[in-house]
Amino acid sequence: MTVASMLGEIGAIGADATRGGYSRPGYCAVDRELREWFEGHAIRRGLDVERDANGIVWAWWRPPGTTGPAIVTGSHLDSVPGGGGYDGPLGVASALAAIDLLKSMALPRPIGIAVFPEEEGSRFGVACLGSRLLTGAIAPERALALKDAEGDTFADAAARDGLDPARMGADPASLAGIGAFVELHVEQGRGLVDLGHPVAVASSILGHGRWRVSVDGQGNHAGTTLMQGRRDPVVAAASMILAIRDLARATPDARATVGRLEPVPGGTNVIASRVDFWIDLRHPDDLVTAALVTRVRDLVDVIALAEGCTATVREESLSPTVDFDLGLRRQLRAALPDAPELGTGAGHDAGVLAGHLPTAMLFVRNPTGVSHSPEELCEDADAEAGAVALAQVLGDLARAPLPEPAATPS
Amino acid sequence: MTVASMLGEIGAIGADATRGGYSRPGYCAVDRELREWFEGHAIRRGLDVERDANGIVWAWWRPPGTTGPAIVTGSHLDSVPGGGGYDGPLGVASALAAIDLLKSMALPRPIGIAVFPEEEGSRFGVACLGSRLLTGAIAPERALALKDAEGDTFADAAARDGLDPARMGADPASLAGIGAFVELHVEQGRGLVDLGHPVAVASSILGHGRWRVSVDGQGNHAGTTLMQGRRDPVVAAASMILAIRDLARATPDARATVGRLEPVPGGTNVIASRVDFWIDLRHPDDLVTAALVTRVRDLVDVIALAEGCTATVREESLSPTVDFDLGLRRQLRAALPDAPELGTGAGHDAGVLAGHLPTAMLFVRNPTGVSHSPEELCEDADAEAGAVALAQVLGDLARAPLPEPAATPS
Repeated sequence: MTVASMLGEIGAIGADATRGGYSRPGYCAVDRELREWFEGHAIRRGLDVERDANGIVWAWWRPPGTTGPAIVTGSHLDSVPGGGGYDGPLGVASALAAIDLLKSMALPRPIGIAVFPEEEGSRFGVACLGSRLLTGAIAPERALALKDAEGDTFADAAARDGLDPARMGADPASLAGIGAFVELHVEQGRGLVDLGHPVAVASSILGHGRWRVSVDGQGNHAGTTLMQGRRDPVVAAASMILAIRDLARATPDARATVGRLEPVPGGTNVIASRVDFWIDLRHPDDLVTAALVTRVRDLVDVIALAEGCTATVREESLSPTVDFDLGLRRQLRAALPDAPELGTGAGHDAGVLAGHLPTAMLFVRNPTGVSHSPEELCEDADAEAGAVALAQVLGDLARAPLPEPAATPS
Repeated sequence: MTVASMLGEIGAIGADATRGGYSRPGYCAVDRELREWFEGHAIRRGLDVERDANGIVWAWWRPPGTTGPAIVTGSHLDSVPGGGGYDGPLGVASALAAIDLLKSMALPRPIGIAVFPEEEGSRFGVACLGSRLLTGAIAPERALALKDAEGDTFADAAARDGLDPARMGADPASLAGIGAFVELHVEQGRGLVDLGHPVAVASSILGHGRWRVSVDGQGNHAGTTLMQGRRDPVVAAASMILAIRDLARATPDARATVGRLEPVPGGTNVIASRVDFWIDLRHPDDLVTAALVTRVRDLVDVIALAEGCTATVREESLSPTVDFDLGLRRQLRAALPDAPELGTGAGHDAGVLAGHLPTAMLFVRNPTGVSHSPEELCEDADAEAGAVALAQVLGDLARAPLPEPAATPS
């Protein structure tokens, strides 16, 4: 079965008629439907399927005679609101296709597929929530208190989704059973288009984080309040957004984005009393990221003061730049001698796992270079090439001596 | 029964735990609960209650022997999101209290109370929807096609709320039965606080309108897209918001507000593909309003171009400045010799009716001067003073010769 035909089976799940593309938040009914699709495929292939305490679905191919730490691949099925159909699902479908290509071979190690929930963090605000829980990168108490836009806590949502909040958290035994992790992902830029290759080996993930800015002003009537006396948090937020953009533009290799902004109460004829907006900030040098955050805090304070408002900046997540395991990268390049190496500005579960075990990634060409948008694309032939490359890598790793864990986040 | 105690009865209906205050959109379950509260009070007072084709609830006090056009008072029960408890309901409860004060008298004309739906326009985007339908200020076809934030049409919402969309529209016979309309409303500024009076007679309503700005850019991944290549509609919208504020500040007596802004798709790690925001713009001189809108269209075009985006500006509503009927104002000032005259920047159903029949308003002191916010306030004693003033005015008008309709929007 081709990768494209597998993805076609989930083409209607979570389709977003308003935004276009897909809206597939984690730990909900849409997520369950996607999970059942994956589990069906895994079971039909004779894999052992289990869902762990953090909601990660594992599918194991452990033919008799296999032994030692497993080689694991996988990705995620959730999406940003109005996202594309490949970011996540391409890696999951390619993992199933790679198993099809490998299953006639006798490999000495087990192979696993992991499906991580809430990778985008679009529901509870923390990206890679599943892998962060697994590795202990987020304390379960903090995670369980997170709220979605409807005010539901993660604890309640997880319980409704069949999980036991009391059992969530780091699972070092599970991590110890993994010899190496390789995530295949659609590329989210134009690197492979420019290089003319279908598949690349990842070198690094740009450090990134999310900060929530809350600006408090004075809610009032839009018609009866003179311009002079206003303390309008929308105006303050607008000024902050422009200052943050200018700061990122002036800093080589920095990227800063405000894509989510919520005025409260949000009425047309009402001066808002509060605005919350979120900054996504990325830079390859973690020291520069820290310096940028300090500058953002300063400019937020100054602008809030000038507009008669007050503001707070709270870190919601911060992931340092990850250089993937050098030994594993060498093995991948040996398995795929034609594939170039590429860095990425996008975060991934592989980046979270990289602090705990040898981890690598493969990227598959995206002809539009656009991601987190319905315009994201992967040609069918490139998807097949990706699955073949993944099978090659998994097969070689299952036969080779594993590298010692060497990568820690820089 | 005091005005304050009546308002206490609806203190839990539509309370908004997230925003504070009340969120009471029109033509929905909350609206129905409020309507049933009003209808119960009206029926207990022996009034004849009817809901017309546009969803306006009328309660008539027509003792035997009364004749001729009625004197009508009333207001609305809906609110902006997170609004105060007085904007609207104060006028409705005061109307009931005024009937209590008048009912032992033998008046020659009938007295009516009108409750207008969706005055704030917070659900379907058009303020004073009920009175606009009644007077023909909005065509029913246009109104029925309006959509709320969930994508529900007004036609569907009205049908679910028990109305027949095919019967909606202008009702000149109903308007012809009204000799004068007087709306009591909490003041939405500090005029009465500064003057030290509990009640004022309204002189005029500032012209106002709503425009929806849609900015289209290029949705993309927040991490993989360089700052240089971006066409980010959030940045463009931020720049427009500041320019619009500067324009309003530089124009004496102008007020411009952006209180509602919606990035699409609205994810934290996503450059938005589109932003919709709404401008509320008001000025006493309708020619200045028109000139301001032209300037806004120009600056929106220029900023969109500079940011690689495109933008459209669509008028959603426009109400000219209304000077209330001079003859009626003279009668109100005679009934309330101590009350000052005050203009207002807020729109009201009375402003829509003013083009069709003699119309006036009373304002009651708001010690915070804040409205469209949970901080909106009316002291119990002032609410009682307002009801007494309203009863005085209604009684005098029911006994006096009515002024000829003289007011048309200037």
